[in-house]
Amino acid sequence: MYDLIIIGGGPAGLAAAVYAARQKIKFCVVTKDIGGQTRWSSDVENYLGFHLVSGEQLVEKFQEHIRDYKIELKESEVKEIKKKDSCFIVVTEKENLETKTILIASGKKPRMLNVPGEKEFRGRGISYCATCDAPLFRDKKVAVIGGGNAALDAALLLEKYCSKVYLITINEKMMGDELLVEKATKSKKIEIITKANTKEIKGNKFVKSIVIETNGSKKELKVEGVFIEIGSIPSVDFDKLTEKNKWNEIVIHSENYISNQTSVPGIFAAGDCTDVPEKQIIVAAGEGVKAVLGVFKYLGKQKIGY
Amino acid sequence: MYDLIIIGGGPAGLAAAVYAARQKIKFCVVTKDIGGQTRWSSDVENYLGFHLVSGEQLVEKFQEHIRDYKIELKESEVKEIKKKDSCFIVVTEKENLETKTILIASGKKPRMLNVPGEKEFRGRGISYCATCDAPLFRDKKVAVIGGGNAALDAALLLEKYCSKVYLITINEKMMGDELLVEKATKSKKIEIITKANTKEIKGNKFVKSIVIETNGSKKELKVEGVFIEIGSIPSVDFDKLTEKNKWNEIVIHSENYISNQTSVPGIFAAGDCTDVPEKQIIVAAGEGVKAVLGVFKYLGKQKIGY
Repeated sequence: MYDLIIIGGGPAGLAAAVYAARQKIKFCVVTKDIGGQTRWSSDVENYLGFHLVSGEQLVEKFQEHIRDYKIELKESEVKEIKKKDSCFIVVTEKENLETKTILIASGKKPRMLNVPGEKEFRGRGISYCATCDAPLFRDKKVAVIGGGNAALDAALLLEKYCSKVYLITINEKMMGDELLVEKATKSKKIEIITKANTKEIKGNKFVKSIVIETNGSKKELKVEGVFIEIGSIPSVDFDKLTEKNKWNEIVIHSENYISNQTSVPGIFAAGDCTDVPEKQIIVAAGEGVKAVLGVFKYLGKQKIGY
Repeated sequence: MYDLIIIGGGPAGLAAAVYAARQKIKFCVVTKDIGGQTRWSSDVENYLGFHLVSGEQLVEKFQEHIRDYKIELKESEVKEIKKKDSCFIVVTEKENLETKTILIASGKKPRMLNVPGEKEFRGRGISYCATCDAPLFRDKKVAVIGGGNAALDAALLLEKYCSKVYLITINEKMMGDELLVEKATKSKKIEIITKANTKEIKGNKFVKSIVIETNGSKKELKVEGVFIEIGSIPSVDFDKLTEKNKWNEIVIHSENYISNQTSVPGIFAAGDCTDVPEKQIIVAAGEGVKAVLGVFKYLGKQKIGY
């Protein structure tokens, strides 16, 4: 029986794990990958204390930090969580784990565009991760779909490799950091196309073009790569227990000085999978710590062997 | 007219400042000191990404980070904040500053014990900062008053210098990280005295002894130093505008996807001065970012020249 199982190995889960290790409770972290979406960030300039690191470097720092604590890491996917008396069962691909509390910090995954060709050409020119795949498109023309910081980040990274980057948004203008918008606007390789609806991705074996609609008329752009950066959705398929909002984010609240509680006593949540609107690395880390301190208080209060 | 004035230069204020700089709004940070209480932490082991740094080293990292952004820092104390039409005036020791929004991140300051001798011997053997003053008590006997992590931290630091450390708490046992409690309990120099009420601090020119009461009987311990580590109170004397809770912490709430709002529209708050119960460096940093993103949304919404 664990005191706590942390689901997710991104900044929220890892920040919580550091505190749990120092509190000397019996816990483990179940995650498919360490670092979560942070790993796929190109340059991280806003995690206080680190000026200009790559997402991968920052994750490396996180790993160094947790390594010394000999934290039990289970590399597995969580399939389901179930209530059992006053405790819980976490069903992973490999085993069933019993625990007194759960901290869900499972983050988000990329949102699909849902247009013809998207499924067909995924991994054949369509990518959801510019950081991972940008170097594959050297000297090629690509399109980035999206209207926010993620799309801007992707475009600014891709211009270092590609001959041409179409930045396509359905909005009237690009949103996001002024600094990034300015950089993208000034770039000679990036062409921003606004009020454009992406209708289809075409190809043969690989992507060959993208069809967009602006002001009612369709247009086909020849590209060999399409980067879809239209946000993300919570990775909470395994959780049928807690209350969600309309975006399927876990609703959290603070009560009796215990933060990050879900609708189910004993289940806490933190980071991008919750309804906290700010999806930022340092916010996730802070929320993970709030949640695990909530767990400590809950364990102390419930007096179930802690 | 500023878009934003950040009051406070601790982790909440600095994390917010990094985001504000990247957003290219007109803002400044008003603070007496950079780093806030972080600077006075001995070893920080739980700020994700940094394993085992001193508070001072971490503040140095924060400073390095903000230096590149050429952030306008005003080294001054805020005396008052006032409403003026739809904007605010921040009154500092030196000048009056006009701003559209305020982010209060002014942190906390040490709580006083309020016993005879405390005011008299402040700086003459009484300290509220073990990190600052521990080396002054080499080979001497000292007492630490307090029952939580801060007191444990102080005692564990002081045992490196002092011949004897009394750790005095009014509680039945020491609270705080199990790891720290265990270390303190095992230490040969630290003597933990529980259920003890501190009655008086005595001395001549400097502290000579401390009087405690346990089980109804008084006892005098010969010490040359007394470290008071009984928590802290919000540094919000300048703020008569926002709603506070019973501990004088600023009450914050999230509404319409805008986080860290106070009872006054346009004034946001983050970190140790708020009613978020977790007083932790990384939580403060995360809260600072939530608040400043709230400010951006507020500025965009109000359409007052942003």
